[in-house]
Amino acid sequence: MSWFQKTISLPPLKRGFHLVTREILEKIPELKNYKVGLCNLFIRHTSASLTINENADPSVRTDFESHFNKMVPERAPYYIHTYEGDDDMPAHLKSSILGASINIPITNGQLSMGTWQGIYLCEHRDFGSSRQITITINGE
Amino acid sequence: MSWFQKTISLPPLKRGFHLVTREILEKIPELKNYKVGLCNLFIRHTSASLTINENADPSVRTDFESHFNKMVPERAPYYIHTYEGDDDMPAHLKSSILGASINIPITNGQLSMGTWQGIYLCEHRDFGSSRQITITINGE
Amino acid sequence: MSWFQKTISLPPLKRGFHLVTREILEKIPELKNYKVGLCNLFIRHTSASLTINENADPSVRTDFESHFNKMVPERAPYYIHTYEGDDDMPAHLKSSILGASINIPITNGQLSMGTWQGIYLCEHRDFGSSRQITITINGE
Repeated sequence: MSWFQKTISLPPLKRGFHLVTREILEKIPELKNYKVGLCNLFIRHTSASLTINENADPSVRTDFESHFNKMVPERAPYYIHTYEGDDDMPAHLKSSILGASINIPITNGQLSMGTWQGIYLCEHRDFGSSRQITITINGE
Repeated sequence: MSWFQKTISLPPLKRGFHLVTREILEKIPELKNYKVGLCNLFIRHTSASLTINENADPSVRTDFESHFNKMVPERAPYYIHTYEGDDDMPAHLKSSILGASINIPITNGQLSMGTWQGIYLCEHRDFGSSRQITITINGE
Repeated sequence: MSWFQKTISLPPLKRGFHLVTREILEKIPELKNYKVGLCNLFIRHTSASLTINENADPSVRTDFESHFNKMVPERAPYYIHTYEGDDDMPAHLKSSILGASINIPITNGQLSMGTWQGIYLCEHRDFGSSRQITITINGE
Protein backbone atom coordinates (compact mmCIF):
# COMPACT_ATOMS: atom_id res chain seq x y z
CA MET A 1 0.00 0.00 0.00
CA SER A 2 1.61 3.24 -0.96
CA TRP A 3 1.23 6.76 -2.22
CA PHE A 4 3.03 8.30 -5.14
CA GLN A 5 2.79 11.95 -6.17
CA LYS A 6 4.48 13.96 -8.85
CA THR A 7 3.82 17.26 -10.60
CA ILE A 8 4.63 17.23 -14.30
CA SER A 9 4.63 19.92 -16.96
CA LEU A 10 3.21 19.52 -20.42
CA PRO A 11 4.65 21.84 -23.07
CA PRO A 12 2.44 24.65 -24.41
CA LEU A 13 -0.26 23.34 -26.72
CA LYS A 14 -2.38 25.29 -29.13
CA ARG A 15 -5.98 26.04 -28.26
CA GLY A 16 -8.05 22.89 -28.60
CA PHE A 17 -8.41 19.34 -27.35
CA HIS A 18 -5.29 17.17 -27.29
CA LEU A 19 -4.83 13.47 -26.68
CA VAL A 20 -2.06 13.17 -24.06
CA THR A 21 -2.41 9.61 -22.76
CA ARG A 22 1.07 8.62 -23.91
CA GLU A 23 2.73 11.78 -22.56
CA ILE A 24 1.14 11.16 -19.16
CA LEU A 25 2.08 7.46 -19.07
CA GLU A 26 5.70 8.21 -19.95
CA LYS A 27 5.95 10.36 -16.83
CA ILE A 28 4.73 7.68 -14.42
CA PRO A 29 6.65 4.42 -14.89
CA GLU A 30 5.87 3.82 -11.18
CA LEU A 31 2.36 2.84 -12.25
CA LYS A 32 3.54 -0.70 -12.97
CA ASN A 33 4.08 -1.27 -9.22
CA TYR A 34 0.37 -1.01 -8.45
CA LYS A 35 -1.83 -4.07 -8.77
CA VAL A 36 -4.97 -2.16 -7.83
CA GLY A 37 -5.56 1.51 -7.07
CA LEU A 38 -6.63 4.89 -8.35
CA CYS A 39 -4.79 7.58 -10.25
CA ASN A 40 -5.86 11.21 -9.87
CA LEU A 41 -4.76 13.78 -12.45
CA PHE A 42 -5.25 17.37 -11.32
CA ILE A 43 -4.55 20.34 -13.58
CA ARG A 44 -3.29 23.34 -11.64
CA HIS A 45 -4.93 25.99 -13.84
CA THR A 46 -8.32 27.64 -14.36
CA SER A 47 -8.29 28.02 -18.13
CA ALA A 48 -7.39 24.48 -19.16
CA SER A 49 -8.99 21.21 -18.16
CA LEU A 50 -8.81 17.42 -18.30
CA THR A 51 -11.35 14.96 -19.63
CA ILE A 52 -11.58 11.42 -20.96
CA ASN A 53 -12.90 10.75 -24.44
CA GLU A 54 -12.40 9.00 -27.76
CA ASN A 55 -8.76 8.13 -28.45
CA ALA A 56 -8.90 7.27 -32.15
CA ASP A 57 -10.30 9.72 -34.66
CA PRO A 58 -8.86 13.28 -34.40
CA SER A 59 -12.09 14.67 -35.86
CA VAL A 60 -13.70 14.10 -32.46
CA ARG A 61 -11.24 16.54 -30.88
CA THR A 62 -11.90 19.08 -33.64
CA ASP A 63 -15.64 18.87 -33.00
CA PHE A 64 -15.06 19.29 -29.28
CA GLU A 65 -13.36 22.61 -29.94
CA SER A 66 -16.13 23.71 -32.34
CA HIS A 67 -18.92 22.76 -29.99
CA PHE A 68 -17.42 24.28 -26.86
CA ASN A 69 -16.85 27.54 -28.75
CA LYS A 70 -20.55 27.55 -29.62
CA MET A 71 -21.81 26.52 -26.18
CA VAL A 72 -19.47 28.95 -24.39
CA PRO A 73 -19.01 31.83 -26.84
CA GLU A 74 -16.50 34.63 -26.76
CA ARG A 75 -17.73 38.21 -26.30
CA ALA A 76 -21.07 37.23 -24.80
CA PRO A 77 -22.84 40.52 -24.02
CA TYR A 78 -23.22 39.58 -20.34
CA TYR A 79 -19.52 39.03 -19.61
CA ILE A 80 -18.01 41.64 -17.31
CA HIS A 81 -14.65 39.86 -16.78
CA THR A 82 -13.23 40.93 -20.12
CA TYR A 83 -9.90 42.65 -19.52
CA GLU A 84 -7.77 39.52 -19.99
CA GLY A 85 -8.96 38.96 -23.55
CA ASP A 86 -11.90 37.50 -25.44
CA ASP A 87 -10.73 33.96 -24.75
CA ASP A 88 -10.32 34.36 -20.99
CA MET A 89 -13.83 34.14 -19.52
CA PRO A 90 -14.89 31.34 -21.89
CA ALA A 91 -11.74 29.48 -20.80
CA HIS A 92 -12.76 29.67 -17.13
CA LEU A 93 -16.27 28.44 -17.93
CA LYS A 94 -15.08 25.57 -20.10
CA SER A 95 -12.62 24.48 -17.45
CA SER A 96 -15.38 24.08 -14.86
CA ILE A 97 -17.77 22.38 -17.28
CA LEU A 98 -15.11 19.80 -18.12
CA GLY A 99 -13.38 19.75 -14.74
CA ALA A 100 -9.93 20.17 -13.24
CA SER A 101 -9.36 16.54 -12.39
CA ILE A 102 -10.05 12.98 -13.47
CA ASN A 103 -9.80 9.74 -11.54
CA ILE A 104 -8.85 6.56 -13.32
CA PRO A 105 -8.79 3.06 -11.84
CA ILE A 106 -5.51 1.14 -11.85
CA THR A 107 -5.54 -2.58 -12.60
CA ASN A 108 -2.43 -4.75 -12.87
CA GLY A 109 -0.03 -1.86 -13.28
CA GLN A 110 -2.02 -0.02 -15.92
CA LEU A 111 -4.60 2.73 -16.20
CA SER A 112 -7.77 0.69 -16.57
CA MET A 113 -9.62 2.59 -19.26
CA GLY A 114 -11.94 1.25 -21.93
CA THR A 115 -10.62 0.39 -25.39
CA TRP A 116 -11.61 3.71 -26.87
CA GLN A 117 -10.80 5.99 -23.98
CA GLY A 118 -7.90 8.41 -23.80
CA ILE A 119 -6.90 11.42 -21.72
CA TYR A 120 -7.51 14.88 -23.20
CA LEU A 121 -5.69 18.03 -22.20
CA CYS A 122 -8.16 20.78 -23.10
CA GLU A 123 -6.37 24.06 -23.74
CA HIS A 124 -8.88 26.90 -23.68
CA ARG A 125 -6.57 29.91 -24.12
CA ASP A 126 -5.32 31.21 -27.46
CA PHE A 127 -1.77 31.28 -26.16
CA GLY A 128 -1.69 28.93 -23.20
CA SER A 129 1.60 28.34 -21.46
CA SER A 130 3.07 25.12 -20.19
CA ARG A 131 0.49 23.31 -18.04
CA GLN A 132 1.22 21.62 -14.74
CA ILE A 133 -0.56 18.46 -13.70
CA THR A 134 -0.25 16.91 -10.26
CA ILE A 135 -0.50 13.13 -10.48
CA THR A 136 -1.44 11.29 -7.29
CA ILE A 137 -1.47 7.50 -7.20
CA ASN A 138 -2.71 5.39 -4.32
CA GLY A 139 -2.89 1.64 -4.35
CA GLU A 140 -1.18 -1.59 -3.50
CA MET B 1 -7.50 -0.85 5.19
CA SER B 2 -8.11 -2.52 1.88
CA TRP B 3 -8.83 -2.19 -1.78
CA PHE B 4 -11.69 -3.79 -3.67
CA GLN B 5 -12.17 -3.61 -7.43
CA LYS B 6 -14.70 -5.16 -9.74
CA THR B 7 -15.92 -4.48 -13.27
CA ILE B 8 -19.64 -4.94 -13.73
CA SER B 9 -21.90 -4.82 -16.78
CA LEU B 10 -25.22 -3.07 -16.90
CA PRO B 11 -27.66 -4.36 -19.54
CA PRO B 12 -28.39 -2.17 -22.58
CA LEU B 13 -30.58 0.78 -21.70
CA LYS B 14 -32.48 3.05 -24.03
CA ARG B 15 -31.17 6.50 -24.76
CA GLY B 16 -31.74 8.74 -21.76
CA PHE B 17 -30.96 9.14 -18.08
CA HIS B 18 -31.49 6.12 -15.82
CA LEU B 19 -31.45 5.76 -12.06
CA VAL B 20 -29.18 2.79 -11.32
CA THR B 21 -28.36 3.17 -7.62
CA ARG B 22 -29.96 -0.15 -6.71
CA GLU B 23 -28.36 -2.05 -9.59
CA ILE B 24 -24.94 -0.76 -8.53
CA LEU B 25 -25.44 -1.54 -4.85
CA GLU B 26 -26.56 -5.10 -5.60
CA LYS B 27 -23.20 -5.72 -7.27
CA ILE B 28 -21.08 -4.62 -4.31
CA PRO B 29 -22.18 -6.34 -1.09
CA GLU B 30 -18.54 -5.87 0.01
CA LEU B 31 -19.39 -2.24 0.72
CA LYS B 32 -20.69 -3.19 4.15
CA ASN B 33 -17.12 -4.04 5.26
CA TYR B 34 -15.97 -0.43 4.99
CA LYS B 35 -16.49 1.91 7.92
CA VAL B 36 -15.00 4.87 6.05
CA GLY B 37 -13.68 5.24 2.53
CA LEU B 38 -14.38 6.25 -1.04
CA CYS B 39 -16.08 4.47 -3.92
CA ASN B 40 -15.09 5.35 -7.50
CA LEU B 41 -17.39 4.38 -10.36
CA PHE B 42 -15.73 4.61 -13.76
CA ILE B 43 -17.63 3.99 -17.00
CA ARG B 44 -15.42 2.42 -19.66
CA HIS B 45 -17.07 4.15 -22.64
CA THR B 46 -17.02 7.48 -24.45
CA SER B 47 -20.70 7.77 -25.35
CA ALA B 48 -22.29 7.14 -21.98
CA SER B 49 -21.60 8.78 -18.64
CA LEU B 50 -22.27 8.77 -14.91
CA THR B 51 -23.67 11.52 -12.75
CA ILE B 52 -25.44 12.04 -9.42
CA ASN B 53 -28.83 13.70 -9.30
CA GLU B 54 -32.39 13.58 -8.03
CA ASN B 55 -33.55 10.08 -7.15
CA ALA B 56 -37.30 10.59 -6.83
CA ASP B 57 -39.30 12.10 -9.66
CA PRO B 58 -38.70 10.49 -13.09
CA SER B 59 -39.64 13.77 -14.77
CA VAL B 60 -36.21 15.09 -13.77
CA ARG B 61 -34.55 12.39 -15.89
CA THR B 62 -36.85 13.18 -18.81
CA ASP B 63 -35.90 16.86 -18.63
CA PHE B 64 -32.21 15.93 -18.50
CA GLU B 65 -32.59 14.15 -21.83
CA SER B 66 -34.52 17.08 -23.35
CA HIS B 67 -32.07 19.68 -22.16
CA PHE B 68 -28.93 17.83 -23.17
CA ASN B 69 -30.40 17.30 -26.65
CA LYS B 70 -30.89 21.06 -26.90
CA MET B 71 -27.52 22.04 -25.44
CA VAL B 72 -25.65 19.45 -27.51
CA PRO B 73 -27.73 19.09 -30.68
CA GLU B 74 -27.51 16.46 -33.39
CA ARG B 75 -26.44 17.50 -36.89
CA ALA B 76 -24.76 20.72 -35.81
CA PRO B 77 -23.37 22.25 -39.00
CA TYR B 78 -19.84 22.34 -37.57
CA TYR B 79 -19.56 18.61 -36.81
CA ILE B 80 -17.08 16.75 -39.02
CA HIS B 81 -17.13 13.47 -37.08
CA THR B 82 -20.40 12.30 -38.58
CA TYR B 83 -19.90 8.86 -40.10
CA GLU B 84 -20.99 6.93 -36.99
CA GLY B 85 -24.46 8.46 -36.98
CA ASP B 86 -26.24 11.62 -35.88
CA ASP B 87 -26.18 10.55 -32.25
CA ASP B 88 -22.45 9.80 -32.10
CA MET B 89 -20.69 13.15 -31.79
CA PRO B 90 -23.31 14.55 -29.37
CA ALA B 91 -22.80 11.40 -27.29
CA HIS B 92 -19.06 12.07 -26.99
CA LEU B 93 -19.67 15.68 -26.00
CA LYS B 94 -22.32 14.81 -23.43
CA SER B 95 -20.09 12.17 -21.88
CA SER B 96 -17.32 14.71 -21.22
CA ILE B 97 -19.71 17.37 -19.95
CA LEU B 98 -21.15 14.92 -17.43
CA GLY B 99 -17.99 12.90 -16.85
CA ALA B 100 -16.80 9.31 -16.95
CA SER B 101 -16.51 8.82 -13.23
CA ILE B 102 -18.00 9.76 -9.89
CA ASN B 103 -16.55 9.49 -6.39
CA ILE B 104 -18.85 8.84 -3.47
CA PRO B 105 -17.87 8.80 0.21
CA ILE B 106 -18.46 5.63 2.21
CA THR B 107 -19.71 5.88 5.78
CA ASN B 108 -20.57 2.92 7.99
CA GLY B 109 -20.80 0.43 5.14
CA GLN B 110 -22.98 2.57 2.88
CA LEU B 111 -22.61 5.05 0.06
CA SER B 112 -22.95 8.31 1.93
CA MET B 113 -25.17 10.33 -0.41
CA GLY B 114 -27.76 12.95 0.47
CA THR B 115 -31.40 11.98 0.89
CA TRP B 116 -32.34 12.97 -2.65
CA GLN B 117 -29.23 11.79 -4.47
CA GLY B 118 -29.01 8.77 -6.74
CA ILE B 119 -26.64 7.46 -9.40
CA TYR B 120 -27.57 8.05 -13.05
CA LEU B 121 -26.33 6.01 -15.98
CA CYS B 122 -26.59 8.44 -18.90
CA GLU B 123 -26.96 6.56 -22.17
CA HIS B 124 -26.27 8.94 -25.05
CA ARG B 125 -26.50 6.54 -28.02
CA ASP B 126 -29.75 5.53 -29.75
CA PHE B 127 -28.78 1.88 -29.51
CA GLY B 128 -26.19 1.64 -26.77
CA SER B 129 -24.89 -1.75 -25.85
CA SER B 130 -24.21 -3.20 -22.42
CA ARG B 131 -22.09 -0.74 -20.42
CA GLN B 132 -19.14 -1.71 -18.27
CA ILE B 133 -18.39 0.11 -15.03
CA THR B 134 -15.23 -0.44 -13.01
CA ILE B 135 -15.94 -0.01 -9.30
CA THR B 136 -12.96 0.71 -7.06
CA ILE B 137 -13.39 0.91 -3.30
CA ASN B 138 -10.71 1.97 -0.85
CA GLY B 139 -11.25 2.32 2.86
CA GLU B 140 -11.00 0.68 6.22
CA MET C 1 -1.76 6.11 6.54
CA SER C 2 -5.17 7.11 7.69
CA TRP C 3 -8.68 8.16 6.82
CA PHE C 4 -10.48 11.24 8.05
CA GLN C 5 -14.11 12.06 7.33
CA LYS C 6 -16.36 14.86 8.45
CA THR C 7 -19.64 16.36 7.25
CA ILE C 8 -19.80 20.13 7.53
CA SER C 9 -22.56 22.66 6.89
CA LEU C 10 -22.12 25.89 5.04
CA PRO C 11 -24.65 28.62 5.88
CA PRO C 12 -27.28 29.51 3.25
CA LEU C 13 -25.79 31.48 0.39
CA LYS C 14 -27.60 33.50 -2.22
CA ARG C 15 -27.97 32.09 -5.72
CA GLY C 16 -24.65 32.30 -7.52
CA PHE C 17 -21.05 31.17 -7.36
CA HIS C 18 -19.18 31.63 -4.09
CA LEU C 19 -15.54 31.25 -3.20
CA VAL C 20 -15.43 29.06 -0.08
CA THR C 21 -11.81 27.89 0.09
CA ARG C 22 -11.19 29.54 3.45
CA GLU C 23 -14.46 28.30 4.98
CA ILE C 24 -13.57 24.74 3.96
CA LEU C 25 -9.99 24.93 5.24
CA GLU C 26 -11.11 26.27 8.61
CA LYS C 27 -13.17 23.11 9.08
CA ILE C 28 -10.30 20.69 8.49
CA PRO C 29 -7.26 21.56 10.61
CA GLU C 30 -6.48 17.82 10.43
CA LEU C 31 -5.20 18.45 6.90
CA LYS C 32 -1.80 19.46 8.27
CA ASN C 33 -1.18 15.85 9.40
CA TYR C 34 -1.06 14.57 5.82
CA LYS C 35 2.19 14.72 3.89
CA VAL C 36 0.61 13.28 0.75
CA GLY C 37 -2.94 12.28 -0.05
CA LEU C 38 -6.25 13.24 -1.60
CA CYS C 39 -9.17 15.26 -0.31
CA ASN C 40 -12.67 14.57 -1.64
CA LEU C 41 -15.41 17.17 -1.16
CA PHE C 42 -18.89 15.82 -1.81
CA ILE C 43 -21.98 18.03 -1.71
CA ARG C 44 -25.05 16.13 -0.46
CA HIS C 45 -27.58 17.98 -2.64
CA THR C 46 -28.91 17.95 -6.20
CA SER C 47 -29.40 21.67 -6.73
CA ALA C 48 -26.01 22.98 -5.66
CA SER C 49 -22.56 21.90 -6.80
CA LEU C 50 -18.81 22.24 -6.30
CA THR C 51 -16.16 23.32 -8.77
CA ILE C 52 -12.66 24.76 -8.86
CA ASN C 53 -11.97 28.05 -10.58
CA GLU C 54 -10.38 31.49 -10.40
CA ASN C 55 -9.89 32.70 -6.83
CA ALA C 56 -9.14 36.38 -7.41
CA ASP C 57 -11.52 38.56 -9.38
CA PRO C 58 -15.18 38.34 -8.24
CA SER C 59 -16.30 39.29 -11.75
CA VAL C 60 -15.48 35.73 -12.81
CA ARG C 61 -18.10 34.39 -10.41
CA THR C 62 -20.65 36.92 -11.66
CA ASP C 63 -20.04 35.79 -15.23
CA PHE C 64 -20.41 32.15 -14.18
CA GLU C 65 -23.90 32.91 -12.91
CA SER C 66 -24.81 34.85 -16.08
CA HIS C 67 -23.51 32.18 -18.41
CA PHE C 68 -25.07 29.22 -16.62
CA ASN C 69 -28.42 31.03 -16.63
CA LYS C 70 -28.11 31.38 -20.41
CA MET C 71 -26.84 27.84 -21.06
CA VAL C 72 -29.43 26.29 -18.74
CA PRO C 73 -32.41 28.65 -18.89
CA GLU C 74 -35.45 28.80 -16.67
CA ARG C 75 -38.87 28.02 -18.15
CA ALA C 76 -37.51 26.11 -21.13
CA PRO C 77 -40.59 24.95 -23.06
CA TYR C 78 -39.51 21.32 -22.84
CA TYR C 79 -39.31 21.12 -19.04
CA ILE C 80 -41.97 18.92 -17.46
CA HIS C 81 -40.51 18.94 -13.92
CA THR C 82 -41.83 22.40 -13.09
CA TYR C 83 -43.85 22.18 -9.86
CA GLU C 84 -40.95 23.08 -7.55
CA GLY C 85 -40.38 26.47 -9.18
CA ASP C 86 -38.71 28.00 -12.20
CA ASP C 87 -35.28 27.64 -10.63
CA ASP C 88 -35.60 23.95 -9.74
CA MET C 89 -35.00 22.02 -12.96
CA PRO C 90 -32.17 24.35 -14.08
CA ALA C 91 -30.60 23.79 -10.65
CA HIS C 92 -30.60 20.01 -11.16
CA LEU C 93 -29.04 20.36 -14.61
CA LYS C 94 -26.37 22.80 -13.48
CA SER C 95 -25.44 20.56 -10.58
CA SER C 96 -24.70 17.64 -12.90
CA ILE C 97 -22.84 19.78 -15.44
CA LEU C 98 -20.55 21.08 -12.70
CA GLY C 99 -20.57 17.99 -10.52
CA ALA C 100 -21.29 16.96 -6.94
CA SER C 101 -17.70 16.35 -5.93
CA ILE C 102 -14.14 17.48 -6.43
CA ASN C 103 -10.87 15.74 -5.63
CA ILE C 104 -7.85 17.79 -4.65
CA PRO C 105 -4.34 16.48 -4.05
CA ILE C 106 -2.73 17.02 -0.65
CA THR C 107 0.94 17.93 -0.44
CA ASN C 108 2.80 18.72 2.78
CA GLY C 109 -0.32 19.33 4.83
CA GLN C 110 -2.05 21.59 2.32
CA LEU C 111 -4.54 21.39 -0.52
CA SER C 112 -2.23 21.40 -3.49
CA MET C 113 -4.02 23.73 -5.88
CA GLY C 114 -2.55 26.11 -8.43
CA THR C 115 -1.91 29.74 -7.53
CA TRP C 116 -5.17 30.96 -9.02
CA GLN C 117 -7.44 28.08 -8.02
CA GLY C 118 -10.11 28.20 -5.35
CA ILE C 119 -13.15 26.15 -4.35
CA TYR C 120 -16.57 27.39 -5.48
CA LEU C 121 -19.86 26.51 -3.84
CA CYS C 122 -22.37 26.92 -6.65
CA GLU C 123 -25.83 27.67 -5.27
CA HIS C 124 -28.39 27.12 -8.01
CA ARG C 125 -31.62 27.76 -6.07
CA ASP C 126 -33.16 31.18 -5.42
CA PHE C 127 -33.51 30.37 -1.74
CA GLY C 128 -31.10 27.56 -1.04
CA SER C 129 -30.78 26.31 2.49
CA SER C 130 -27.68 25.40 4.44
CA ARG C 131 -25.56 22.99 2.35
CA GLN C 132 -23.85 19.90 3.70
CA ILE C 133 -20.50 18.78 2.38
CA THR C 134 -18.88 15.48 3.32
CA ILE C 135 -15.10 15.83 3.39
CA THR C 136 -13.08 12.62 3.08
CA ILE C 137 -9.30 12.69 3.39
CA ASN C 138 -7.00 9.76 2.76
CA GLY C 139 -3.26 9.94 2.93
CA GLU C 140 -0.18 9.45 5.04
